[in-house]
Amino acid sequence: MNQRAPVETTFESISPAEFFYRNRQLAGFGNTSQAIYSAVRELVENSLDSCDDAQRLPLIEVQVMSEGGDIIRVCVSDNGTGVPDAHVPQAFAKILYGSKFHNRQRRGTFGLGVTMAVLYGQITTDSPVLVHTKCPDSQGMEYALFIDVETNQPIIESSCSRDRDSDGTSVTLRLRGDLKRAQERILEYLRLTTISTPQAQFLLKTDNAESITFGRWSNSVPSPILTSNPHPRAADLELLRRLAQHNGDKRLQDFLVDSFQKVGTKTSGRFLKFVGFNPTRKVNTLTRDDLSRISSALRKFDGFESPDHKSLSPIGEEDFLVGIRSVFNISSHYYSDRGPSEWQGNPFIIEGVLATGDDFPRSDIPTLYRFANRVPLLYDSSEDVLTKTLKRVNWERYSVDSSVPAALFLHLCSTRVPYKAAGKQSIDTIPEIEAEVVSLLRDLGRRLGRTMRKSEKSLREGKKMREYAKSFRHLAKFGAELAGVDEVPDTNRLVKQLFEVSLDE
Amino acid sequence: MNQRAPVETTFESISPAEFFYRNRQLAGFGNTSQAIYSAVRELVENSLDSCDDAQRLPLIEVQVMSEGGDIIRVCVSDNGTGVPDAHVPQAFAKILYGSKFHNRQRRGTFGLGVTMAVLYGQITTDSPVLVHTKCPDSQGMEYALFIDVETNQPIIESSCSRDRDSDGTSVTLRLRGDLKRAQERILEYLRLTTISTPQAQFLLKTDNAESITFGRWSNSVPSPILTSNPHPRAADLELLRRLAQHNGDKRLQDFLVDSFQKVGTKTSGRFLKFVGFNPTRKVNTLTRDDLSRISSALRKFDGFESPDHKSLSPIGEEDFLVGIRSVFNISSHYYSDRGPSEWQGNPFIIEGVLATGDDFPRSDIPTLYRFANRVPLLYDSSEDVLTKTLKRVNWERYSVDSSVPAALFLHLCSTRVPYKAAGKQSIDTIPEIEAEVVSLLRDLGRRLGRTMRKSEKSLREGKKMREYAKSFRHLAKFGAELAGVDEVPDTNRLVKQLFEVSLDE
Repeated sequence: MNQRAPVETTFESISPAEFFYRNRQLAGFGNTSQAIYSAVRELVENSLDSCDDAQRLPLIEVQVMSEGGDIIRVCVSDNGTGVPDAHVPQAFAKILYGSKFHNRQRRGTFGLGVTMAVLYGQITTDSPVLVHTKCPDSQGMEYALFIDVETNQPIIESSCSRDRDSDGTSVTLRLRGDLKRAQERILEYLRLTTISTPQAQFLLKTDNAESITFGRWSNSVPSPILTSNPHPRAADLELLRRLAQHNGDKRLQDFLVDSFQKVGTKTSGRFLKFVGFNPTRKVNTLTRDDLSRISSALRKFDGFESPDHKSLSPIGEEDFLVGIRSVFNISSHYYSDRGPSEWQGNPFIIEGVLATGDDFPRSDIPTLYRFANRVPLLYDSSEDVLTKTLKRVNWERYSVDSSVPAALFLHLCSTRVPYKAAGKQSIDTIPEIEAEVVSLLRDLGRRLGRTMRKSEKSLREGKKMREYAKSFRHLAKFGAELAGVDEVPDTNRLVKQLFEVSLDE
Repeated sequence: MNQRAPVETTFESISPAEFFYRNRQLAGFGNTSQAIYSAVRELVENSLDSCDDAQRLPLIEVQVMSEGGDIIRVCVSDNGTGVPDAHVPQAFAKILYGSKFHNRQRRGTFGLGVTMAVLYGQITTDSPVLVHTKCPDSQGMEYALFIDVETNQPIIESSCSRDRDSDGTSVTLRLRGDLKRAQERILEYLRLTTISTPQAQFLLKTDNAESITFGRWSNSVPSPILTSNPHPRAADLELLRRLAQHNGDKRLQDFLVDSFQKVGTKTSGRFLKFVGFNPTRKVNTLTRDDLSRISSALRKFDGFESPDHKSLSPIGEEDFLVGIRSVFNISSHYYSDRGPSEWQGNPFIIEGVLATGDDFPRSDIPTLYRFANRVPLLYDSSEDVLTKTLKRVNWERYSVDSSVPAALFLHLCSTRVPYKAAGKQSIDTIPEIEAEVVSLLRDLGRRLGRTMRKSEKSLREGKKMREYAKSFRHLAKFGAELAGVDEVPDTNRLVKQLFEVSLDE
């Protein structure tokens, strides 16, 4: 055996800020071009969520300017709800602090996005984040904030009252990055965002370029996204234990009705019979083992309804098509959706548009545009469940081949999107999601295929008709000659009648 | 404008345990088959790191058994250092708590892996993790632990003294999963681990199968992996500020020498001249702005040496080949390495073996086996920098085509591996790493190509030689007949001499 001295192990606790400082690539801040893109994206997502909350048409100003060398100034300004004074320091300078988790669709995942951009700015340029915000009950406040990485607490560099014309938030960051390489991605990101959020208008100002305004293809604000109780199949032990803790006094049957979505007294009763518990038993008499049995059974019982969709906000056929038509030249399109279904108790809807048009490349499979909770996904496509499923479909069967310029726009919305990494670029392969995507793609494929075949058929029919018509004219002419008649009868009407019948078959 | 009531936003702080409870797929616990695989992998990594620390030949027992239904019991037992009593609860039941961060190569990334497995076990089966561990200065302790998800603190269900024959740790978890689908991956993972850690021996016991023992292809314990000071190019503001805080009394020139690796008094002096600071100035007189200027300059100055390799532990040619030969049938092989280089100040080495042999499929490009810090990577290959770079190489140029069954084993070791996600399955595209991989692949390709061409050439030469020999024999026979000589002279020696000369050219 080896006799060298062993290395001593020491232990420590790591703050979330420290963890992401050391592993910033996990959150999309691994290299200089992606960092700028990620910063813009996180700020824009927050702004759009905030406008959703305010039930306002979003008007978002994005500035990305070089300040000499590789120092880039990013500023995003919105007309959303604004952030209450008391929360500004933590909301922008504490990792894993954010708007309270609700069981509803949001673009941002809580507490990681914007603070990561702040952290990255701070460690690359030593600049604080500047936040200027106004809520309905304030005149406006401006903060300059750093993150204390070791403790994960905000450092308030300065704060003062500063008027702001209307509600909303402006955030300014300085970070090191490669703007040239990021610029195109940012434009593409915003352009695609106007497809998934067609009510949003953007004003983009980048280096050496005129301001561009685009978006607002639709003037309707989507219905508010409401919080739902969790679906019973989401009740792992941790959730069930928490719910039970806050409802100790209730009878088991009422507890289930009050805690979960779409569980009525009848369903609750049937479930308790299935799992063998007395419906009148008090929740606070349940042992850990009882809760464990109930949790298992909740996930096995097949008598629950499919999940509620009020916590979801799909784009919808009309808006989705308006958006796509505004950004691309489309010659034909097909919309379809599936759901709400659930994965691990999280409701989701998948919707998609299969479109043809000369803006798209001709290929064996349609070009894919991915969206999750109304956010376009631009990186890491090849490991994404949407890409993988698209590739599994036999598109030839649906008459899609390299002669057809086609694109597929897929939107997954869920109370929880299973991103593979905190950088939110690709969606994990969850069997329930995969199955619904397959069905959706088949449906869209069939519909495109039908039209393609119809148009092929009508081409064939047209040719046949012209041949028939020619033969009939000859026959009629020949007959007329035989009969010694000068005027040849009109055969066209006859042929048309013949083919109308045949087309209706 | 729309008059619907806005949604109120509320804020909260989220514990790391809560974050990963809600986003478990980020850490490789997204679905039931990957969860078992990830749990085994995290436990085995910890065990191997611990044996490295103990400077012992690892002997690791892995049990993965079904306990009825989809409840799986995972137990991993090692002969490593053991965990000191006082640290057991936090090390196994607090997310983001782990062995202190040192600037050296480790398999585990601090504080996330095993605790994620514990969390997943707890929420799917309500079972605590069982830890039985013994350090040199204890008799052995056994703990049963849960994680309080809301506060991210350990809950000690029970703890008692329990003897253990020798130092080491055994960890037992119960989790829900799909063992059938995970089994093959686990075996592949362990098999490949014996390539990157050829001194490790595994004893694997799974459902309905005999125990398998494999590994220990080499009996030498790798040299201890030592902690280095950071490379000066790693000094972002955060790091520089912390270092300055602890070295306020020092003169700037000494501060740099003491804080960073491979910076001597001369280099320190030249750097300070470059950035325009007085070498005798005290560190505690530096302003935030001074630190910012120094940090920028540290990353720009080109007078620093390439990083230290003592904090790295590449497998090395001999061990890498022993491992590969023990697991696969190899007919030829080529080893090469590059580095130490650095990415964002983190030293790394990339080494690789290009091997041919009938165990590998015949394809346009070699089959890739990826390793990072001696850990085989099995999932999410297509977005990995190693895969992407492999695909960019024109293998035909190196005479690799579908007639050659070839495989490429690539190992990246670094004090920090830029994984794309906390599940540690693929490596981010970092330009510095990409560049070194390209050089390595070209070198390996050239060497294989040279041999392929040589063997083609020797095939051609052989054929030519046989033809010459035949002609010479005829000529000699003809000459002998002409001359009326009965005995035909031996021409073979002549031909051989001729071709030896030509082969040497």
